[in-house]
Parts: sequence; C-alpha cells; structure tokens
Amino acid sequence: MCDICVVNSVKEKMLSRRGFFTGAAAATAAAAGMSAAPRPVLAQPARQVVDMTHELSAAFPTFGGSPGISYDKQFDFDGDGYNLYVLSINEHTGTHIDAPLHFSADGQSVAEIPVENLACPLCVVDIRAKASENPDSQVTPDDLRAWIGRNGPIPDGACVAMNSGWAEKVGTDGFRNADSARPGTMHFPGFHVEAVQMLLDETNAAAIAVDTLSLDYGPSTDFATHYAWLPAGRYGIECLAGLDRMPETGATLMVGAPKVKDGTGGPARIMGLV
Amino acid sequence: MCDICVVNSVKEKMLSRRGFFTGAAAATAAAAGMSAAPRPVLAQPARQVVDMTHELSAAFPTFGGSPGISYDKQFDFDGDGYNLYVLSINEHTGTHIDAPLHFSADGQSVAEIPVENLACPLCVVDIRAKASENPDSQVTPDDLRAWIGRNGPIPDGACVAMNSGWAEKVGTDGFRNADSARPGTMHFPGFHVEAVQMLLDETNAAAIAVDTLSLDYGPSTDFATHYAWLPAGRYGIECLAGLDRMPETGATLMVGAPKVKDGTGGPARIMGLV
Repeated sequence: MCDICVVNSVKEKMLSRRGFFTGAAAATAAAAGMSAAPRPVLAQPARQVVDMTHELSAAFPTFGGSPGISYDKQFDFDGDGYNLYVLSINEHTGTHIDAPLHFSADGQSVAEIPVENLACPLCVVDIRAKASENPDSQVTPDDLRAWIGRNGPIPDGACVAMNSGWAEKVGTDGFRNADSARPGTMHFPGFHVEAVQMLLDETNAAAIAVDTLSLDYGPSTDFATHYAWLPAGRYGIECLAGLDRMPETGATLMVGAPKVKDGTGGPARIMGLV
Repeated sequence: MCDICVVNSVKEKMLSRRGFFTGAAAATAAAAGMSAAPRPVLAQPARQVVDMTHELSAAFPTFGGSPGISYDKQFDFDGDGYNLYVLSINEHTGTHIDAPLHFSADGQSVAEIPVENLACPLCVVDIRAKASENPDSQVTPDDLRAWIGRNGPIPDGACVAMNSGWAEKVGTDGFRNADSARPGTMHFPGFHVEAVQMLLDETNAAAIAVDTLSLDYGPSTDFATHYAWLPAGRYGIECLAGLDRMPETGATLMVGAPKVKDGTGGPARIMGLV
C-alpha cells in the first residue's frame, strides 16, 4: 500500500468507525420511538455509579430538629409471611428535593419537574477551605466566577453543587451546629442570594445543591436564597452526600426525585455517574 | 511534510487522542477516589432520559385496593410563606421497589441494595401479544430463551422487565382487573416462578420488573415468584412505566430506590437512559 493510500485508509477507518457508532445510537433512539435530543444526557460513557444519598432514618438530623420519618409496621414476616411498613415522612427530610412549589403559591410540584432536568451535568463548587474556618460561609459570585474560569461556562441543565465538607458531619451535632446562645439559629454554609441571582441571570442551570440542611446558610432569617431560586422555576437539593468523590466537572447527577402529585419536594435517591 | 510523515502524524494524533481520553477518564476516576470498575455502568453515551415512573397520588391503583398515600399539609404558602406536607406512604405503592426484606426475615433492606445494582442494563421481554389475549399470561422460560436467542446473554446486573402493555391501563379498572365473581382475585400478567428460577440459576440479573401490580400474576395465591426471587437477594420493581419507549436491549435503567433504613421497598423514581 502506498503512503498516501495508508493515509486514506486510516482516515476511512476513522470515518467508518464514527459512522458506525452514530448509526448504532440513531438506531437505538429510533427503536425507542424518539427523535434526536438537542443535548445528550451523557456525552460520554460512564464508568462508575456513586451513591450521593444519606441513609434516611429517624436519627437523621432535620432542619426543625424533630425526626423526619416514623415507621408503622403493618405486616411482619413471622406472622404474615412478609414485611411491610406504612411510613410517615416529612417531605423535607434527608437527602431531598426542594421543588419550586415549596416556596411559591403555584410553582412546579416535585412531580412536574421535567425529567430532562433530573439528569444534570454536575458542577462542584468547593468551599471547604473557607467553611472549615467559618461555618457561616456562603457560595458567592466570586466562587462561581473562579469555577467558570477553570472549567468554562456552566452547562445548560446543570446542577451547581456546594461542597462545604458538611456531609461528613452528619452523625455529629456539628451538622445542625445549633447556636447555644441563640435558640433556633444554626451555623452551616449555604448559597448567597447574589450567587443564585447570578445563576438565574447568566445560566440555564436547573438546580443548586448543598451538602447542608438548607439552600440558605444557617443564620438566615429571610430565606432570601429559597425565595430567589425556587419561585423562578428552578429546584434545589439539600443534604447531598458524596461530593468528595465527584470531579469538579464532567460527572452527571441522576436525581431520583419522588414523583408525588402536588409534592413540594421529598427524599430522593441521587446517584452520580462518573 | 513527506507522505510517511503524514501517516505517522495521523497515527500519532490518533494515539494521543486515545491517550488523552483514557487519561482524562482515569483522572476523573482518580479524582473521585475510585478504582476502575469491572463493568462500566454505561458502555456508551446516552442521548435521552425517559421517565419510567407513574405519578403517585391517592388515586393510583394499589394491590390491596386502599389508597397508598395520604397528605397532611403542615405549612401553607398563604399563611406561612412556604408549603410542606407530611406524607403517609404504604411502601408498596406506585412505581416501587420490592427489596429482599419484603419477603424474607433478614434479607437486604431497600437501603442495603448495592448502588451498582441500581444502574441496570435493561432487558425488555415483550409479552403484549399473549397478554392482550389472556390477562393471566406469564413470562416463561421460553420467553427468556427467545429474548436470549435474539439478543445474546442477559448481562450481569441486568433488570429483566416484563412489558405486558399494562402501563397504559393505569387510569382504568383494567389495571387491577378485579374478578367480580371471586373477591380478592385479580387478573394481570406477571413472572412465572420457573422463569425467575431460570434467571437465578443461569444469570446474574439484579432485578426483575413488571408493569403490573405484582411480580406474581394476578391469580396467584402462593406468591411463588416473590418467595423464589426476593429471599435469593435479588430485588423487584412493580408498576414500571414507559417500557413501550425502551428498546429490547441497550438501554440503562437508573433505579432511584428510596434509601430508607430497614425499608422493605418503597416508591422509586426510575429513569431510562437510551
């Protein structure tokens, strides 16, 4: 084979392989009765799935302080041949969703969040350094600009997640970090309202996530971040786990939000694809 | 550039690109603190996410016939500035999981199902033709062998899902299809115990799924399929939606099972990646 033939052969193989994969994907989409999506939910294969959900139990810390779940055993294996509980669950407990309806009169319920917005490019904003020095730290526009400077624009449909290092405190009093001098006040990080305003103005991010009990930082009394973000038709995730195992960019968050009619949120199973 | 130089240049670019992507993936995995997985959760990019979850409400049909969810509104936007419910939920309601613990004394709870088993290669067994003629149809070993004959072996960690066409009956009496002559008896399709025994003996499938109210077909009185499958450490999905939109093979099911300590199952958000 002449040199130029080798070159052409290599090029042809590259093109035919690309064509093969494109064709296979198109056939799969056609079999599923779907048209091509404008944004692929996963631009590349995923090697691993990572659990980003805390186990929910009556011992899991809550914003209000009371247990968020209780169990009523209706059937027991010994006597009935199977086990079954009826559970009583405060929607805003554990690793969970804040739907727009949580802080608005008529926003989207958790069941109405478009499924496309439950498969999110994950952007991890790491504020562990400042949060370890000051628990009342917040994600600021400067933190977002620094992330964008390193990684480029925040993708459409993204979940912008704060990693404050709080997930590892879950089994300790440090997670709620209640202020002993001021009853009702807690100290943990959250998103500054100016940061979510920047996300609203400049991005099509679908969600923000925190590894703490609230989108607003602990000392908040006006819930400015909740009121800016949720009524705008975006949603939130609270008590997210596993952010330490996620890269700053490139992972996909699969948000298993409950599909409860009229729900204002609810415990979710959240997995990261890396 | 001479011809051979062009060839080498093309080869080098191919190698360096391959090296770049491999390196990037390895770096991502390293950043996430993980070693390489033996089985990638998604072997190819995914173009679309498909919701495979029915909306859960008090009107959703249940196995026992009573509503599976009730709402207690604790806070209202008009008076309190935000909306919040405490929900009472029968674990085995709506699109939901049957964990091994549901039909065993000490099997895995829903929180203990390994996360790797919640990202499943989806195998759709289409029995719509026979189910439309006989609602008491079952997935049999012959149905599985026919699927394998067309598609090859059932992958490790798979979810083998019955598409009986029942999902479209959800808003009608035909979903429960109660027998008017025999109170307590229903007529809908399920898995024959011999089919799940074949899956136990010959595959490493993680789950089976049905688009009906039970892994066992409606007339069952001994729940043979539940008792064969769940105590063996595999899990089930009931009332799965959206199978009509899935290819026979090649999609990935992301099973957002609730991570409730000691839970015997529970409503799940299930999405298909195609």
